[in-house]
Amino acid sequence: MRKNMRLGVCYYPEHWEESLWEEDLLRMRDYGIDTIRIGEFAWSLFEPTEGVFDFSMFDRFLALTEKTGMQVIMGTPTATPPIWLTERYPEVLNATADGTLYRHGLRRHYNYNSKKYQELSTRIVTRMGEHFGHHPMVIGWQIDNEINCETPEFHSEADHAAFREYMKDKYETLENLNEKMGGNVWSQRYTEWDQVTLRRPTVNGHYNPHLLLEEKRFFSESAIWFCRMQCDILRPLIGDAFLTTNGIFDNLDYTRLMQGLDFLCYDSYPNFALAMDRSGQEDPLFLDRKWSKNLSVVRALCAPFGIMEQQGGANGWTGRMEAPMPRPGQLRLWTFQSIAHGADFISFFRWRTAPYGTEIYWHGLLDYDNYPGNRRMQELAEISRDMHKLPVEPGQYLARIAVLRNYDNEWDAALDKWHERVEKVSERGLFEAAQLLHEPMDYLYMNESVTPEQLKKYDLVIWPHATILEDRYVDVLRSYMETGGQVMFGARTGYKDAFGRCPMRPMGFGAAELAGIRIEDYTFIGPYDEPGMAEMDGTSIEMPVFNDVLLASEGTQVEARYSSNYYKGKPAIVSRTCGQGRIWYVGSAFSRKTAMCLLKKLGFGEPYQAYLTLPEECELAVRGNLCFVLNYGRNAAGITVHEEMQDVLLCKQVVGQQQIAPFDVRVYALPETGK
Amino acid sequence: MRKNMRLGVCYYPEHWEESLWEEDLLRMRDYGIDTIRIGEFAWSLFEPTEGVFDFSMFDRFLALTEKTGMQVIMGTPTATPPIWLTERYPEVLNATADGTLYRHGLRRHYNYNSKKYQELSTRIVTRMGEHFGHHPMVIGWQIDNEINCETPEFHSEADHAAFREYMKDKYETLENLNEKMGGNVWSQRYTEWDQVTLRRPTVNGHYNPHLLLEEKRFFSESAIWFCRMQCDILRPLIGDAFLTTNGIFDNLDYTRLMQGLDFLCYDSYPNFALAMDRSGQEDPLFLDRKWSKNLSVVRALCAPFGIMEQQGGANGWTGRMEAPMPRPGQLRLWTFQSIAHGADFISFFRWRTAPYGTEIYWHGLLDYDNYPGNRRMQELAEISRDMHKLPVEPGQYLARIAVLRNYDNEWDAALDKWHERVEKVSERGLFEAAQLLHEPMDYLYMNESVTPEQLKKYDLVIWPHATILEDRYVDVLRSYMETGGQVMFGARTGYKDAFGRCPMRPMGFGAAELAGIRIEDYTFIGPYDEPGMAEMDGTSIEMPVFNDVLLASEGTQVEARYSSNYYKGKPAIVSRTCGQGRIWYVGSAFSRKTAMCLLKKLGFGEPYQAYLTLPEECELAVRGNLCFVLNYGRNAAGITVHEEMQDVLLCKQVVGQQQIAPFDVRVYALPETGK
Amino acid sequence: MRKNMRLGVCYYPEHWEESLWEEDLLRMRDYGIDTIRIGEFAWSLFEPTEGVFDFSMFDRFLALTEKTGMQVIMGTPTATPPIWLTERYPEVLNATADGTLYRHGLRRHYNYNSKKYQELSTRIVTRMGEHFGHHPMVIGWQIDNEINCETPEFHSEADHAAFREYMKDKYETLENLNEKMGGNVWSQRYTEWDQVTLRRPTVNGHYNPHLLLEEKRFFSESAIWFCRMQCDILRPLIGDAFLTTNGIFDNLDYTRLMQGLDFLCYDSYPNFALAMDRSGQEDPLFLDRKWSKNLSVVRALCAPFGIMEQQGGANGWTGRMEAPMPRPGQLRLWTFQSIAHGADFISFFRWRTAPYGTEIYWHGLLDYDNYPGNRRMQELAEISRDMHKLPVEPGQYLARIAVLRNYDNEWDAALDKWHERVEKVSERGLFEAAQLLHEPMDYLYMNESVTPEQLKKYDLVIWPHATILEDRYVDVLRSYMETGGQVMFGARTGYKDAFGRCPMRPMGFGAAELAGIRIEDYTFIGPYDEPGMAEMDGTSIEMPVFNDVLLASEGTQVEARYSSNYYKGKPAIVSRTCGQGRIWYVGSAFSRKTAMCLLKKLGFGEPYQAYLTLPEECELAVRGNLCFVLNYGRNAAGITVHEEMQDVLLCKQVVGQQQIAPFDVRVYALPETGK
Repeated sequence: MRKNMRLGVCYYPEHWEESLWEEDLLRMRDYGIDTIRIGEFAWSLFEPTEGVFDFSMFDRFLALTEKTGMQVIMGTPTATPPIWLTERYPEVLNATADGTLYRHGLRRHYNYNSKKYQELSTRIVTRMGEHFGHHPMVIGWQIDNEINCETPEFHSEADHAAFREYMKDKYETLENLNEKMGGNVWSQRYTEWDQVTLRRPTVNGHYNPHLLLEEKRFFSESAIWFCRMQCDILRPLIGDAFLTTNGIFDNLDYTRLMQGLDFLCYDSYPNFALAMDRSGQEDPLFLDRKWSKNLSVVRALCAPFGIMEQQGGANGWTGRMEAPMPRPGQLRLWTFQSIAHGADFISFFRWRTAPYGTEIYWHGLLDYDNYPGNRRMQELAEISRDMHKLPVEPGQYLARIAVLRNYDNEWDAALDKWHERVEKVSERGLFEAAQLLHEPMDYLYMNESVTPEQLKKYDLVIWPHATILEDRYVDVLRSYMETGGQVMFGARTGYKDAFGRCPMRPMGFGAAELAGIRIEDYTFIGPYDEPGMAEMDGTSIEMPVFNDVLLASEGTQVEARYSSNYYKGKPAIVSRTCGQGRIWYVGSAFSRKTAMCLLKKLGFGEPYQAYLTLPEECELAVRGNLCFVLNYGRNAAGITVHEEMQDVLLCKQVVGQQQIAPFDVRVYALPETGK
Repeated sequence: MRKNMRLGVCYYPEHWEESLWEEDLLRMRDYGIDTIRIGEFAWSLFEPTEGVFDFSMFDRFLALTEKTGMQVIMGTPTATPPIWLTERYPEVLNATADGTLYRHGLRRHYNYNSKKYQELSTRIVTRMGEHFGHHPMVIGWQIDNEINCETPEFHSEADHAAFREYMKDKYETLENLNEKMGGNVWSQRYTEWDQVTLRRPTVNGHYNPHLLLEEKRFFSESAIWFCRMQCDILRPLIGDAFLTTNGIFDNLDYTRLMQGLDFLCYDSYPNFALAMDRSGQEDPLFLDRKWSKNLSVVRALCAPFGIMEQQGGANGWTGRMEAPMPRPGQLRLWTFQSIAHGADFISFFRWRTAPYGTEIYWHGLLDYDNYPGNRRMQELAEISRDMHKLPVEPGQYLARIAVLRNYDNEWDAALDKWHERVEKVSERGLFEAAQLLHEPMDYLYMNESVTPEQLKKYDLVIWPHATILEDRYVDVLRSYMETGGQVMFGARTGYKDAFGRCPMRPMGFGAAELAGIRIEDYTFIGPYDEPGMAEMDGTSIEMPVFNDVLLASEGTQVEARYSSNYYKGKPAIVSRTCGQGRIWYVGSAFSRKTAMCLLKKLGFGEPYQAYLTLPEECELAVRGNLCFVLNYGRNAAGITVHEEMQDVLLCKQVVGQQQIAPFDVRVYALPETGK
Repeated sequence: MRKNMRLGVCYYPEHWEESLWEEDLLRMRDYGIDTIRIGEFAWSLFEPTEGVFDFSMFDRFLALTEKTGMQVIMGTPTATPPIWLTERYPEVLNATADGTLYRHGLRRHYNYNSKKYQELSTRIVTRMGEHFGHHPMVIGWQIDNEINCETPEFHSEADHAAFREYMKDKYETLENLNEKMGGNVWSQRYTEWDQVTLRRPTVNGHYNPHLLLEEKRFFSESAIWFCRMQCDILRPLIGDAFLTTNGIFDNLDYTRLMQGLDFLCYDSYPNFALAMDRSGQEDPLFLDRKWSKNLSVVRALCAPFGIMEQQGGANGWTGRMEAPMPRPGQLRLWTFQSIAHGADFISFFRWRTAPYGTEIYWHGLLDYDNYPGNRRMQELAEISRDMHKLPVEPGQYLARIAVLRNYDNEWDAALDKWHERVEKVSERGLFEAAQLLHEPMDYLYMNESVTPEQLKKYDLVIWPHATILEDRYVDVLRSYMETGGQVMFGARTGYKDAFGRCPMRPMGFGAAELAGIRIEDYTFIGPYDEPGMAEMDGTSIEMPVFNDVLLASEGTQVEARYSSNYYKGKPAIVSRTCGQGRIWYVGSAFSRKTAMCLLKKLGFGEPYQAYLTLPEECELAVRGNLCFVLNYGRNAAGITVHEEMQDVLLCKQVVGQQQIAPFDVRVYALPETGK
């Protein structure tokens, strides 16, 4: 991130009369906007017909940015190939598993593996790099737009062919391939490389699960390759301008994608949580607030990060996604949510609501009518003033707890209903527990580069359901524990290898060994069973979704025993010392209640209680010495400041009872780093 | 309509032993049936193989109609091409958006734009016109059958090509096309006319909304063209026989379709409302009664009109649509529902239940077994007697209120979820309010031919959600108001142009100007918001679904202010004088309660209370001086006649308390035209 | 069944290290397993490339079976063609109705009618027969695996062509075909045989129902032909080894399939009933217990029968079907459920849980880790001990009641929503009533080979909804009644012919004549109607779903009259003497309550009450003189033994109060055959 980049907006010169441009830029500057993103959907203007390039419209626009002092992030336009391209070269189109091509009319209808698309993308990106690469106002580039959005699956002929090469590179021999893919089940052995394809239609839609896992890895590698191809083109053409991309989408390993980029941007739309197709059954405590979970994922991938698209109005398409207009204060609240979680650049989407196209209800800051004084613009002015009260680099997000994730398990859970069911409950339960306990929590992506040292800043590391558990990761965790760390596993840990196979080995793999347990029996909790419950320290604890029934070795501490169903009395939660640290095994998923109970037992919760007492409605986040308090509630929240501190936004010292209005925010400067 | 055409039935000589024909015809005559419809699905008999024609079966049948004095409406058989045709010329078949052809096996599997289908349709219609056109018993022709039924969407190659021509004719240049279709969004500019197609498969199924609006217009034009092609063939061949068609289906502008026809017929099946896939959660007040809304639509398009298919038994297909048998009295009730709303000809579907095919549960008057005395035939006898007590032309349906519709907005609402949501609630709310207040209500289709004079017969005109609001229509409404009319608009009025784009103009377009308001803010009411409410005249009024937050100019009367959500206290409903009349702007959709409240405030409700007091269960409709009272309730209804009147069906003068049995009907001759 | 075949397991040598084989076989023997099934998915090992055969792996394995004395059932591998086959000859693949081929990646993706598949299947089966046919341990063969599982529908080009031949053979002339298929409806007449195909895509997915009925018959004939082709190959090659196949699936007439086989096996997975996608709204009395209905169907087709796959653990696929682990005792309970209903051979699926593939959650007896002492293996040991306490051939299942089924009506109900709705309620209602009354019940398949003599062993025969009712079946039933039998029909009896057409004949066909009734009126009971009720013997009886309103002739006894809706007071249930017997007509579907009420009225219920009193939670079944009592409840059940009897499993004489633990089983030797 750059220090002169704090507030931005997305703008589409091509949607508006040229006569509006300068006025728009001047108004942006008035509101404190220093950077805009442009160009990411303009291929059909840059290259109106094949091989004919015309940058004149954007040249004229860039001249005005120079005049008005507006910095520009230029998008490469590969997310929306023009119709001359897709009609002439239909091999560039993505397809369904049954081969139906996705045609022109929306966006992201191309595939990454077609040679023709790579060739034409190379050319347009090269020409843009050459043309705009040294423009004084172009400070950075966004690669493509929301890679893997709309669909993260690809089944064109080019993808089948590229997948074959990917598999050949990885497995080398058919014998090896057949072994790893379980070819002896259902007569699925390959005898020629030509037979290897991505998923195609099958009876009732199911498929070899090991191949589906490779399919996801391949989709990810294809996207990474396509992004890196553009980075490699641009880097020599753009001087010291940065490279980024936006969004978090499926089937994409961002820890690898990041390697070619300078930093990551996220597109944050907390009102997805309020889309009208929802039931009204969500917990009101976590409507827009659950976006903090997504922001924590972004932070795990890149800290600090930027927000390329911060929600600027109601969102919706003509054919779906109706949501209410953000309430007064929410745009500002959501902006601070992004900052609190690690964003140093906030760019709103978009300046003015689209006048046509599928996204006429994806509202910008200004309405269709360009009326200058609307409620959202007033809020922007306030946000702009606030941001200048904050330091440019507020410091690192502080957390004592990390929840581990990795892509192998994320993708396995997306393919495997048994895995998915525990994963979904725990992902939500752990996040909500940490929020309600005001215990800031990080995510950490486990891959081959993670070291025990990286874990040491955490007092507790939780890996909820590492179904695929490689020994090398257990080694890292053991090293961390040996020097005093605590690691907690949940049910369904360690019974699959990296191919999604279940080897002949006691379940729990290395984790069970360290915890000194045997997983004697296990079961889903069906709709006709008693709820999963255990007794811990004399009180009841929920053991939801799935129960591993444990057998504890000597030296293993039984922390809780099941109190329902046929395995009543059997160990449910255990712990065991591991060097100077401790390992925990919890035989179920983590509901909110389960997680709160366990975190409290381990001494977590309210780490800043010496300074602040907060109600459940408020989130707490700390960056460096700045303490962010965000009120997502629809009522004013009362908080208590125990020690006099600077209220950074109100610019005064405060102590004692404070009222935070609905959707309002406080930033306190902690006297010293908390915890 | 013709005076000698009052009671009819649909008959299929080709389904029955020839020996049954004469007996069937004689029995029909006994029951007062004067007209039958035949032939509309018999192409494979008329032209058993390509170019070979055989009308002998129908000739023999027509001879018997002459003998028995039965008038005939002949259907053209283009709704069901024979299999020799579709197999030899698959280009005539309709297709899904992904190109899968709809094959033989149901009906309506053809497209309107294939040259081959037009050629073969022209030939069969010509040959039928030549052969039957001057038969003395053939008094009229039905074009095709239920145009656009089964599917109103077409995506065959012929349709793509015809759409291209349609767009070329309309937009002339690609530059103009790109501008109107918002080609600058998502790189969607066309560079060759060849690239223009109807919707094809896209990622996640969404599409350019402006093109989808044109798609609907094109579907409508194609159907109209195909119907008119047949009219043009037949007119010179059939003497003074009339031309009609049947049904109301989607993607079809009947105001234009009507131009080639003599009158319109409707197929009325009120028990669709009771199909067993429904939840049982419908308001029992409006089960079959809601069919009156459909009949009001037909009346708006053609008054008086005919019913070509009046429900004659339980309806159902083998694969769907199970419904109970009509209860005793319901066939008669529904017949009078049709008459009360403007039908002068009632033809039942069908004489005898189908012995085979997909529609064996689409019951006729007679059961499979041909048993003469069943309950439905007894009811037919009663209906026949009743109809002869009514005048042949009962006069015009009388209403003080008109609700405006037009196809642009109807189609936009079908494509745009934000529009659809308000539209659906208001369509139902306004209808139900008018019904419960016994305030007869017309629909009126706004198109370029509507004049202020046409509106003058109404005291109030409501245009619930004219999202697409062209200035020319505002001009017509202003002229109407200037001479004393009242116009009421609801939320989401006027923010789209005729292409579905949102121009840079204050929302509400001309309506907001006339009402003296600015739409300051607007929002869906989400599942976590308070219900939309306002306070009007000291009491609460529902403001459901969507709220426009208004800012009222001087001279604008604030009639209600919001009483919930963050815009509490802001104007919700306003009115303003406009010449001698008044304009109203209501910032929400119209629920039943909202509409009742507003109609009462404006002095509507119970216009015939000097003559009659009715309970909610009964509908009231007036044609000329005949007052129809229809009891849809499952209990007897008590009504009060305040002034002595003729009971037309009971043939006596009545006054005071009257009981109407469940599903029974009364027709009173008003002493003078009411209101 | 053979006497030396009692306990088995399914085993896949190809999934495991060869070093495990002998140990696995020895452990099996230790647990009393005498027979294993192998080979049914191993085509790609038997014929690794086209025309190259390699049986060496299975030869080595068979040598070990000889060494360990383990009998083998060999499966033919045609359910899973290798990929070299399907890629080289895509014409062997099955397809959706729109022609999309089902590709390699699951199983059962082939069609029965491709000449190439028939050729290659013939070759592999011949080679296997030649190679393994006289192996001393190979005592039997399983043809294919679960014929018609995954999908029972076929729409490849080979199927269309074969269907055309099937229709030509059956109907001979197009005139005849058009008449039977109702070609005069919607212009559906064929003019060339080439036009005849299976269902292809149509507008809104519906189709000619008569053709759909033939489609099902054709699917069944194709499967039978394919199975018989294999039988004909093997029979001369395998000495006295038996031929069987496994499972009950749709679109397959097992009464005809059985003709080429020695006996039928079933795959019994009672925990399908507990799969987690269910709502938790099932009646807890009938979760796994409802599998007894399926087992009764198998018994109707083949008595005694085998269980080829008896559930051995939790079931599930990676992509669906999550179910809890069987509770302690359930494996044993389900084994006895199979035996009680007529199984003499029980083979568990599978020895050890799959280490890879789609079915890693389709648990075997052993877990992935091969841990010898798990809970399920302990249960297997107990089962093994129990089985040796039972006689090898426990005798015939005894029932006084038979419910008739036939494939015409089963398939008609699958196609016809009106039929399906009554059928589903009655199938369930009758089964549950018989269960709760502890009144053992048989199914009996009506086809042309059933004689009145076969019915004589039953005191009552119920044909719930014989919508298609052929006169020849009425003749059989009349003969049965004339010598004292009782027959009961429900609503919707007899209004379709064998083509699914509704001829011009009073409804109820021959049944109504015998019962002396006319079906005056009929109706679904819609969601806004009163519940269907009647009064019988002074109390109320449910008349659910559909009501036939009856008119009774003289001599017909009106047993109940409707007490709700507009036909209140009309006859609802009647009976009439027929020779020495009696016919009953019930004008509705049979809910559980309706069925219990009627069975009691006819004197059924608790036929063994002289010996035993049982609570509702327990099922009772009797084979020969063995009385099986199965407790499906989650609580202990108290039963009373009225007369001293031998408890076969506990090996002692018992009388008086007995407690049966949850999921426990008792087998009593009745002093004499009950009833």
